[in-house]
Parts: sequence; C-alpha cells; structure tokens
Amino acid sequence: MNILLTITYDGTNYCGWQRQKNGLSVQECVENALADVLSRDKVTLTACSRTDAGVHAADQKACFETEKLLIPLDKLPQVLNSRLPGDIVITHGAEVEPGFNPRYKAKQKTYTYSILNSKYNDPKLRNYSCHIPYELDIQKMKQACKFFIGTHDFKAFSATGSQQKTSIRTIYNANLTQENNLLTFTVTGNGFLYNMVRILAGTLLYVGLNKIRPDEISEIIEKKDRTLAGKTVPPQGLTLLKVEF
Amino acid sequence: MNILLTITYDGTNYCGWQRQKNGLSVQECVENALADVLSRDKVTLTACSRTDAGVHAADQKACFETEKLLIPLDKLPQVLNSRLPGDIVITHGAEVEPGFNPRYKAKQKTYTYSILNSKYNDPKLRNYSCHIPYELDIQKMKQACKFFIGTHDFKAFSATGSQQKTSIRTIYNANLTQENNLLTFTVTGNGFLYNMVRILAGTLLYVGLNKIRPDEISEIIEKKDRTLAGKTVPPQGLTLLKVEF
Repeated sequence: MNILLTITYDGTNYCGWQRQKNGLSVQECVENALADVLSRDKVTLTACSRTDAGVHAADQKACFETEKLLIPLDKLPQVLNSRLPGDIVITHGAEVEPGFNPRYKAKQKTYTYSILNSKYNDPKLRNYSCHIPYELDIQKMKQACKFFIGTHDFKAFSATGSQQKTSIRTIYNANLTQENNLLTFTVTGNGFLYNMVRILAGTLLYVGLNKIRPDEISEIIEKKDRTLAGKTVPPQGLTLLKVEF
Repeated sequence: MNILLTITYDGTNYCGWQRQKNGLSVQECVENALADVLSRDKVTLTACSRTDAGVHAADQKACFETEKLLIPLDKLPQVLNSRLPGDIVITHGAEVEPGFNPRYKAKQKTYTYSILNSKYNDPKLRNYSCHIPYELDIQKMKQACKFFIGTHDFKAFSATGSQQKTSIRTIYNANLTQENNLLTFTVTGNGFLYNMVRILAGTLLYVGLNKIRPDEISEIIEKKDRTLAGKTVPPQGLTLLKVEF
C-alpha cells in the first residue's frame, strides 16, 4: 500500500521538512511516529515540498509504503497525532496508486507570505510573519503582483547556485490582500524554484518601499539577474497553503 | 515621574505577568530591561492585570516611578524592545500623574477567549486558542452571552477559595463571533474575579455542548455555586485585549 498523508505544521522549531544530521526535522518526527505505529525500524516519507527551517505548512503531502495497515486508514491521523508534538498535526490519510510520488504529481502549489506592516512587531505573529516597520505603498504592491503571472524564466528569482534543470515556471495567480496591518501575498504556480516565493515577496517589498516600479518586474524577469530582484525575506512569513494533484 | 507603559506579550513561555521565584515572568523581563535603561539596580512595575501562565496580552498597562528619564519618552518603547525577547513588545510610554495605579484606575477591561472548533488542532493556533473537536451549537452559545451582561454576584464564576472583598462585578458587553472554525468570545467589564473569564468561556462551552441551556446561566449566577458553572478552560485561549481608564 502507498499511503498519502496530509500534514500541517508550525515550522518554527524545526530545521525544515527534510531529515538532517544536525537538527530536528518535521520529516524525522513523522517518520518516527509512523515507525512506532507500524512496528518497523524505519519508514521513509517522500514529500511534496522541502520546506526550509522556520517555514510552515497547512497542506504538506507525503507518501510512505507499507505492506499492511492494522488500523483503519481514517483513524491513522489520530493515532499518529498522539505520538507527535503539538506543532505537527496529521489531518488526513488516503491510499494512492503504487509509485505515486507527491513531488512529481503535484500540478500546482499555493504559498502565502505574510507581512506585518506596523510600527512595533506583534508577539503572537512574530513566528508567522515578517515585520516591516516602514510605510509601504500597498496599491503599487497589488499592481506589481500581476507582473509575476504567466510562464517565465524565473532565474532572477532563484537562490544563486541552485541547480535545477530549468528555471522556467508558470505562475497561475498572484495577489496581495490586506487585513488591518497584515498583508498576505498569495501565489499559485506549477512549481517554484529554491527560495523563489521569498524572493518574489522581497521584490514586492522593494515595490512597496518605492525602490522599484511595478512594471520593472518584467525587466527583472527578462534580464534573469538575481541582483536586480528584492532580498530573500525571512522564512517565518512563508506557509505552504495548498497542494493540488 | 510616573510612567505608564503599554505592553503586549505572548504568554506561552512565561509563568504569567507576576514576578515569581520559580519561573520567568513577563514582569521580571520588563523590570530588568528598565533597570538596564535607567542604570538602576531595581525597578518595580505596578500592572493593571496579573495574567496567568500562558495567558496573552495585547494591552497590558504597567507603571514605574523614576526621578528622571534621560531619553525622550517616545523613544522608550524602542530602547526597551531592543533589550526584550521577541515575545514581549512595549508599544507605548506616557507620563501619568503621581500615584496613578493602573490596577485601581482601570474603568473597564476587555478580554477575548478563542476556541478552535475543528476535528484536528491547528499547529499555528495551538498556543492561542483552546481546541474543541466536538460539535458545538454556536447559535445557543451566542444567545447565552447576553445572560452574562449586567451587574451580578459572579461567585459561581470565580475560582474556589479566591479571597476578593466582593464578587459583584458589572459586565457591559459579551458576545461570540465566528470566523471559519475559530470562535472568539469577547467580554468587557469593570473588573473580573480570578479565573472568571475562563469560567465564563467554559460555561459557554457547556451551552454549546448542550449540557446546559442558555437561560440556565441566570440560575447559576443566582445560586452562586461554582460547581454548576462550566470548567475553567485552559489559559492559552485568553488574551487581555484592552484596558480603559
């Protein structure tokens, strides 16, 4: 059986999704809980997205293989949750076809990046948003979003030195919403380069700070030069919101 | 000079507002930052509300006396914040009349209690709400709120053994709002007994679970019997939202 889990987590206290030697990962926690439930030495999860340290997920998807499952599939989340810390919650389990790999099967992913635009930071939001105490031109930031949409070579919006076959991606939707002091950038695409959403958000901030004009984004895309785009904003504002197959 | 600070904090990692021997309090952190800024051995803060361990504040008010202040008052928050951990933020400083005591000067206080009503807990909300996985009759909970309003003897809604001169308090407003799975109980009064807001919220939950009827709240108030009211719900859902003088 190939089982697909839906996992939601607060990434604050983890070195990211992926298992690492020098830090506790979300993957390690869930794999250990699974090994315990399945009475196995080791279980390996294949996830949809390798979220970085401090990044959150509302809808991470990860698969594991098992010969049998001695508990009903709909009880699996609850059984795993009782073995997991409170910052990792399994919300769904489903059987999928053999060989189903959530990384390659994902048709589109949606991320959000939250910006708290206020004089002082909010303690309750400090791990879930990036605090910007400067005045932002929010209308221009909203306008800027539309320049991200489409199929482009996003090389300028990728961490330098990252080794992906192609830096062409399609962004289906990008927008910025505002609720009091909290700005949320939501972006949906067929895939994202390493650090891409955080660089898109950093570029939006440059627009908000009047360092670049909204329409300059098209030029930055065209020139494929990482140094022209905005900074990579910190991880805590980022959440993997939705994965669709 | 008597200086009134406005303090916002995430109470998760503290033993509460009040300084204690066996744990780190918010008071101790802010007093230490003040002592450093004022180059004094010790500074004592007098606060408006002694919030419990795990309880949050968006608008705690606390006073300290100082002979002089060598920095402009409007820079004080920033100077203190640079000496405080990220879960405590000073948002305002103002000079008030000598002898002003925020505890006795508070005319009304507003608290919120957040309930996450969903099958699974949300990792990002786990420290800021109480998770209830059972079906709740939200309409009845909304109706029940109005029975709290007025001047009553709230003995039934106070921790047993608490020693306050009188258990008569006035509740000016009480209501329940819903946003997706998140319910927020907001209550404004001239003061609250020990654990009172958490017992009011626990009683609302009893209404939502159909353990008691909305109108039974009047009887519970009248009988002054703690055992008839709901349980004291956990601290993490509670936030001191607003203090008015």
